[in-house]
Amino acid sequence: MTEPVEQNHENTRLAWIAGVGASAGLGAALARRFAREGFTVAVTGRSRERLDALVDAIRGAGGHALALPGDVTSESDLAAITRQLGERGTLEVAIFNAAGATRAPTLELSAEQFEAAWRVTTFGGFLFARAALQPLLANGRGSLLFTGATASLRGRPPFAAFASAKAGLRSLTQSLAREFGPRNIHVAHVVVDGGIDGERLRTSSPQRVAERGSDGLLDPADIAEAYWQLHRQGRSAWSQEIDLRPFNESF
Amino acid sequence: MTEPVEQNHENTRLAWIAGVGASAGLGAALARRFAREGFTVAVTGRSRERLDALVDAIRGAGGHALALPGDVTSESDLAAITRQLGERGTLEVAIFNAAGATRAPTLELSAEQFEAAWRVTTFGGFLFARAALQPLLANGRGSLLFTGATASLRGRPPFAAFASAKAGLRSLTQSLAREFGPRNIHVAHVVVDGGIDGERLRTSSPQRVAERGSDGLLDPADIAEAYWQLHRQGRSAWSQEIDLRPFNESF
Amino acid sequence: MTEPVEQNHENTRLAWIAGVGASAGLGAALARRFAREGFTVAVTGRSRERLDALVDAIRGAGGHALALPGDVTSESDLAAITRQLGERGTLEVAIFNAAGATRAPTLELSAEQFEAAWRVTTFGGFLFARAALQPLLANGRGSLLFTGATASLRGRPPFAAFASAKAGLRSLTQSLAREFGPRNIHVAHVVVDGGIDGERLRTSSPQRVAERGSDGLLDPADIAEAYWQLHRQGRSAWSQEIDLRPFNESF
Amino acid sequence: MTEPVEQNHENTRLAWIAGVGASAGLGAALARRFAREGFTVAVTGRSRERLDALVDAIRGAGGHALALPGDVTSESDLAAITRQLGERGTLEVAIFNAAGATRAPTLELSAEQFEAAWRVTTFGGFLFARAALQPLLANGRGSLLFTGATASLRGRPPFAAFASAKAGLRSLTQSLAREFGPRNIHVAHVVVDGGIDGERLRTSSPQRVAERGSDGLLDPADIAEAYWQLHRQGRSAWSQEIDLRPFNESF
Repeated sequence: MTEPVEQNHENTRLAWIAGVGASAGLGAALARRFAREGFTVAVTGRSRERLDALVDAIRGAGGHALALPGDVTSESDLAAITRQLGERGTLEVAIFNAAGATRAPTLELSAEQFEAAWRVTTFGGFLFARAALQPLLANGRGSLLFTGATASLRGRPPFAAFASAKAGLRSLTQSLAREFGPRNIHVAHVVVDGGIDGERLRTSSPQRVAERGSDGLLDPADIAEAYWQLHRQGRSAWSQEIDLRPFNESF
Repeated sequence: MTEPVEQNHENTRLAWIAGVGASAGLGAALARRFAREGFTVAVTGRSRERLDALVDAIRGAGGHALALPGDVTSESDLAAITRQLGERGTLEVAIFNAAGATRAPTLELSAEQFEAAWRVTTFGGFLFARAALQPLLANGRGSLLFTGATASLRGRPPFAAFASAKAGLRSLTQSLAREFGPRNIHVAHVVVDGGIDGERLRTSSPQRVAERGSDGLLDPADIAEAYWQLHRQGRSAWSQEIDLRPFNESF
Repeated sequence: MTEPVEQNHENTRLAWIAGVGASAGLGAALARRFAREGFTVAVTGRSRERLDALVDAIRGAGGHALALPGDVTSESDLAAITRQLGERGTLEVAIFNAAGATRAPTLELSAEQFEAAWRVTTFGGFLFARAALQPLLANGRGSLLFTGATASLRGRPPFAAFASAKAGLRSLTQSLAREFGPRNIHVAHVVVDGGIDGERLRTSSPQRVAERGSDGLLDPADIAEAYWQLHRQGRSAWSQEIDLRPFNESF
Repeated sequence: MTEPVEQNHENTRLAWIAGVGASAGLGAALARRFAREGFTVAVTGRSRERLDALVDAIRGAGGHALALPGDVTSESDLAAITRQLGERGTLEVAIFNAAGATRAPTLELSAEQFEAAWRVTTFGGFLFARAALQPLLANGRGSLLFTGATASLRGRPPFAAFASAKAGLRSLTQSLAREFGPRNIHVAHVVVDGGIDGERLRTSSPQRVAERGSDGLLDPADIAEAYWQLHRQGRSAWSQEIDLRPFNESF
């Protein structure tokens, strides 16, 4: 990895992003977006290699980043990460972008699959929120942002497990917004409605990607811009929920 | 217990109700309502004594009932129960009425509390649905009904855990309705919006009960009637979701 | 017309249904359903012939009915009708079933078409509610029920005018429910989601009717049953909104 | 008025804002925000004096603006305005900010009041959309934005008329988004949930303003920023609806 530029802890503004995977994915785009604004971006995911590659790329572009690998469903991982964050600067933005998708007819879903979708998506969101809220509240302000999906708003097969977990996460963000808004923490939920342009779709559904045409899939950079704008909102006019979809998406 | 009247297995129509507790609660009212229509009512809950008392009362009133104690979060309990149901008759109605409520500021919720609310409410609902769908599909028709709450529709403190779990359950019922409606299974979700008149509220909040006045709390018998009417709906006009609240409830 | 059986005004319970047209339609089915329960059914629509035919049929089946032709968008028509109702008995149920549908790409909708959809659907609903509420409140109880549609919940082309009007009506029913529920008037909105089996669809889309199969379109009698059950609900557990759709409807 | 700086028609990008009144209101803030970005801002409202004062202020600050007084419920006014727009440049942004609020118990609302609320809010929105869509479609891209309110999402007294009209407008924006998104027009609806800081509230409810504290009312400049960001969104990730409320608002 590139050697990090020295920073003064006092002035270091941190953005923590969990659910970071492929370099072409949304997590990575969020990291790049906040790095561009001068944040030191702490990225969490399960693959140290992927995190290191992203951190290197951000540093190579002149930004500040650090890899904090870990599992959002583990309280001890999260505690270790927030301890490291506390040593590096002041947390201003925390973004939960992890999700566990499963696709199957409901009667073919095992109990383990149903639970796993919830554990990463909803329970992870809860643990992440709790971990992030303490430094955010100590700082007296900040943003706590969550990635939602079409399935957050309605359940349908073959996404029964994923949709249930995403609906549970969405509800959680409403509770958090009502509880912590008055304490100056901006909690918002972004409903990403459509396919995200990236490694996964380009590999799994190349024809669908081609058919959608230019801008017919969500560009991670466009999504990340919306998160950045949410963070920038003046507190007299905060959004709790926004949707995002390609201009030509049916909905 | 009163000795059960002998029944012919072939003609025995079963209604299975999970989440049955206090005799003044909704689970018990549902059991009494379907027993009145000639169903043999199978009641599931964690307290054998409470189930036995209810079964006795139903038999005493000339109805048919059986206690099938068990834990809706246990696949093996559910398998044992559905095996017994298969020996006793034909399942026509299955109602999931279990829920795990927790009330706390979000930062005081432990990971265990957050998980427990989900496990009973959402995961239990999934396991119950899977267990009930097999005999219902074998029968070629029937109803699968779920109890929701105000919190199913929006998250707010101090109900972050409960609301998240209830939202996850609601989403699940939407997936199930879309998947199994065309296979002739009526899946519906009942949003119970308000306090239910019963042991719990009369003990915990006697003043609130008094202030609400006559019919100001949901009478379990009135709620149970709505479930019965859902089951009776002609399949050209099925409800997927209904709300129920006292006439003088603010909403 | 068949001569009406003599009735004692004091004991005459009235159900008033506006938006009554073809004998195979929902308005007529609602009239037959409430007549079957002993109500004297007052039917309002723009075609006196259709109303008379329906009244005759209901009387022929032993029920009580009267035709009160008029236009729900006319305050004076409504005033004349409620005056007649007051002379005939006590209003217990009022159902607003009128709607003005228009189907066109938005840029091809004229201002007149957009307004006409609202005038019948939303404005008519408001005038009807105001007219019905006075005898209902005088009676101290009763039901005020409204017919909604898929379009009540979301706008999409080519239904921009119809959906806007239906959304406005739905909102109105929420205001009415919150205002008059505590005064013992049950205000409910029925979202009819799917095609209604009747003259119109059988003429305009015979192939669609055939493809939907048995019970694949909403049977007006099944819908009417739901309205009757809404009226019967105990006031400790009133529904404000229910949806109805065929078992095999995609949604 | 200050003399306008000469502009080349070819390069003039127009933002048209209807529903512009007091200089401290949202319409004026929207005008100032888009003027700051180099747009020539065309402002429509019923008071020529207020429009002229705003235009003067924008020009005084170095921006470009023009007053196009008129009534959004008049097709001929709108036709005259769009003709003038066509002579002045290329329409890129059109914002509908007009609304007719009425506050009364439902039985005290006259038919005229109910209609007037709809006419300005919903019908005006429809006429404005139709008028704006033609130049926007001719341009091949642009934004069509609408101001919503808490009442857009639920009806409650004493706002039955206003809420019905706002719900109708919201539905209309959904139809427009589905119809014109694929034609490269970004249609979005902004749910302004809370009191807007301005002349009206400061005069009518000074105590409420004081109690809300700093940023406890929506600052028109913060709201206007959200509209600007909506216009800036990349078309792979457009929002159809966002909400905005003060950090300490109950909801």
